Amino acid sequence: MKTVIKNALALTMNGREVLKDAYILIDGSTIRYIGQEAPEQDGNTRVLDARGGIVMPAFVNMHTHLAMTYFRSYASDLRLDKWLEKIFAVEDRLDEEAMYYGALIACAEAMEHGACCVNDMYLDSFGTVRACADSGIRAYVSRCVVDSDGAAGLERRLRENEELFRNFDAFDGRIYVLPSAHAEYTCSREALSRVYGEAKRLGRPVHIHISETNREVSECLARHGMTPLELLQSMGLLEDTTTIAAHCVAVGSRDIDIMQNFRVYPVHNPCSNLKLGSGIAPVKTMLEAGVNVCIGTDGNGSNNNIDMFRETFVASVLQKGFNRRADCTDAFSVFKMATANGAEALGYNGGVLKSGAAADIMILDKTAFLEPVHDPFGMVVYSGEAKRLKTLIVNGRVTVENGECVTVNKQEAYSGFIRCAKRLFEGID
Amino acid sequence: MKTVIKNALALTMNGREVLKDAYILIDGSTIRYIGQEAPEQDGNTRVLDARGGIVMPAFVNMHTHLAMTYFRSYASDLRLDKWLEKIFAVEDRLDEEAMYYGALIACAEAMEHGACCVNDMYLDSFGTVRACADSGIRAYVSRCVVDSDGAAGLERRLRENEELFRNFDAFDGRIYVLPSAHAEYTCSREALSRVYGEAKRLGRPVHIHISETNREVSECLARHGMTPLELLQSMGLLEDTTTIAAHCVAVGSRDIDIMQNFRVYPVHNPCSNLKLGSGIAPVKTMLEAGVNVCIGTDGNGSNNNIDMFRETFVASVLQKGFNRRADCTDAFSVFKMATANGAEALGYNGGVLKSGAAADIMILDKTAFLEPVHDPFGMVVYSGEAKRLKTLIVNGRVTVENGECVTVNKQEAYSGFIRCAKRLFEGID
Repeated sequence: MKTVIKNALALTMNGREVLKDAYILIDGSTIRYIGQEAPEQDGNTRVLDARGGIVMPAFVNMHTHLAMTYFRSYASDLRLDKWLEKIFAVEDRLDEEAMYYGALIACAEAMEHGACCVNDMYLDSFGTVRACADSGIRAYVSRCVVDSDGAAGLERRLRENEELFRNFDAFDGRIYVLPSAHAEYTCSREALSRVYGEAKRLGRPVHIHISETNREVSECLARHGMTPLELLQSMGLLEDTTTIAAHCVAVGSRDIDIMQNFRVYPVHNPCSNLKLGSGIAPVKTMLEAGVNVCIGTDGNGSNNNIDMFRETFVASVLQKGFNRRADCTDAFSVFKMATANGAEALGYNGGVLKSGAAADIMILDKTAFLEPVHDPFGMVVYSGEAKRLKTLIVNGRVTVENGECVTVNKQEAYSGFIRCAKRLFEGID
Repeated sequence: MKTVIKNALALTMNGREVLKDAYILIDGSTIRYIGQEAPEQDGNTRVLDARGGIVMPAFVNMHTHLAMTYFRSYASDLRLDKWLEKIFAVEDRLDEEAMYYGALIACAEAMEHGACCVNDMYLDSFGTVRACADSGIRAYVSRCVVDSDGAAGLERRLRENEELFRNFDAFDGRIYVLPSAHAEYTCSREALSRVYGEAKRLGRPVHIHISETNREVSECLARHGMTPLELLQSMGLLEDTTTIAAHCVAVGSRDIDIMQNFRVYPVHNPCSNLKLGSGIAPVKTMLEAGVNVCIGTDGNGSNNNIDMFRETFVASVLQKGFNRRADCTDAFSVFKMATANGAEALGYNGGVLKSGAAADIMILDKTAFLEPVHDPFGMVVYSGEAKRLKTLIVNGRVTVENGECVTVNKQEAYSGFIRCAKRLFEGID
């Protein structure tokens, strides 16, 4: 089926190009034309009228834990160690059904807040991957590896991710499985090597937490005499493999050198880093060094919304305020971090409106609140919000209409979610 | 007319009280009952079913410039001096009609984003006060005084505010006019004294910008050997008069002492302070000193949304991240800053759900995204957003239904706004 979007104020991400009164032709899951001349339409072509609203690549949420929806507003305002203690107790009870409904609610939320794609890392993820498949979102999913409980645990988790890969990888052209190591502090050198080995074999990126807190880095220095990124580099793991490095709050200039010299994409999660008291990542410095920073929301336990509009806003203004420089992390740069950089790190042809690219598109409502449009990138980054999202298209399919996710049966999802939540928190304060 | 809200999860702001399955009875503009027993209803009683959603005092936006809606996405990513230069050129063209439509759009936006009340300060404000009156919002409006252009300018502006007061003060029990001095750096001692004199005579607070940037404070120190707050104190102006002190970014311990010893309510505008590169106000320190900090959005030129949900979220997590303390500026404290503290500073009986208080109430939708509610204050502060706002009641009248402002004709407002915007920006890049 073909779809034409008309009357678009298109931010193509072909540089800072802005096309007025643009048409976009989608055929199946792919963009086939973008420009100011009307493409040919036949009787089967569906027409979406953007009515002058902003049309842009949808957000790529580069780090999240979808099934953590159960932890929204749980253990608020606690320090990280106490927060983790409470979270771990409930996480132990997460089974496949609970993972499914937690992730399903989060997928609908992610899409209603502008994301076409999520990069998830969590526990045994059959439930998550099924939820992503059912919801219509584009997803990169991983069962992350830890081996702090010994070699048997390592083998089991690697096997779980392999099984995930065998069953779901490339499903519908939008679900992929990535190798993932949780973090240096939960993985032995052996575990890190095995995960990177798998990534090399499959030609996929590795998803890993890196330098989220000062404490993590101090402990790594004590253990190895190196920071987490230095350790990965010293082991030769960063060669030929892309690393998606979530957080990178406590990184220094040598870490940033490593990002520049290898295919390391740091993922900035400003709301979670602030909320958990981890600190403020040196994003301005990373951008100035030419590093391709991405943006993620982290999970609902530490944010507490899967909202890329809010995340992108905070990513921009936080650097301006912290560095006392209103002209840093400008709207266009942050917009690119939240779209094209993520697609590049994941290795798919998206985050851009051009012929041949994945049809992952959002249409914002042109309301009184969005006029006059002096700077459309600023409009999205500083004034964008879910309330202003009209339509989301993922892989050529409309998943959000008039701001509501239409590819998830929310009533049913909600019932399942509540049922699981009762079980998870039973007997816990 | 009477209104009953039923099935409320009520956050009363009587301390941390949370009432499940609560009823709230509104008679005219006032709350007459809140509790878990059903109040008597007659045939004329309107019933609003909250369906288990959170019901709470609506936000009090303590510092804004409503008519700046024209500047949304204008002059993005510029340093403060360059930003001001561009803004000033257009501000010179703002007449009463333009002020009216700019403010009208902003009033609808403010209410759709949870605010029942705005505290505005700007230029000659007949247009603003008419927009506030027409929109249904509760508003404190002021024509702020500057006299950097000499004594005649001072007299003119004082007269404009007096006229505003004579014509509109106490309109409909929800529009009030406050004396206002723009800031120390734009006002002589004479101007400051005159404004405080007027406030004393009327028994009203003064609205003023205080210590927004380091540069402002350095220049004040050079001029007077004192910070702006120290200057006001040394002149005896802070006695017996409430001061609503917008920004307070560059304040030190002696300033905080003054806040404690006099009725000074600092207004934190985190998004604007970050976006303009002004810095991060020491809110954690102020709260620990027992100061009643309030929250405001500032204008649409520097935010760029009049969204108290976003502002409240950022106010909380920014302090946690900047101070590396997840347990500071907890959800309840920030919620109180955004509601009860503002009403207290303005001197009206609001920001609380109790018999006798102003009926300024919001109802949030209980959707899948708001369950389970482990901590309702955290749910509002960390996961609240306009998309989840169902109903807003201001002074007893429903102004927002199903998330849409129903007391502003948005089509008409939009037409007027566009017409004025064209005139304002004509011939300007």
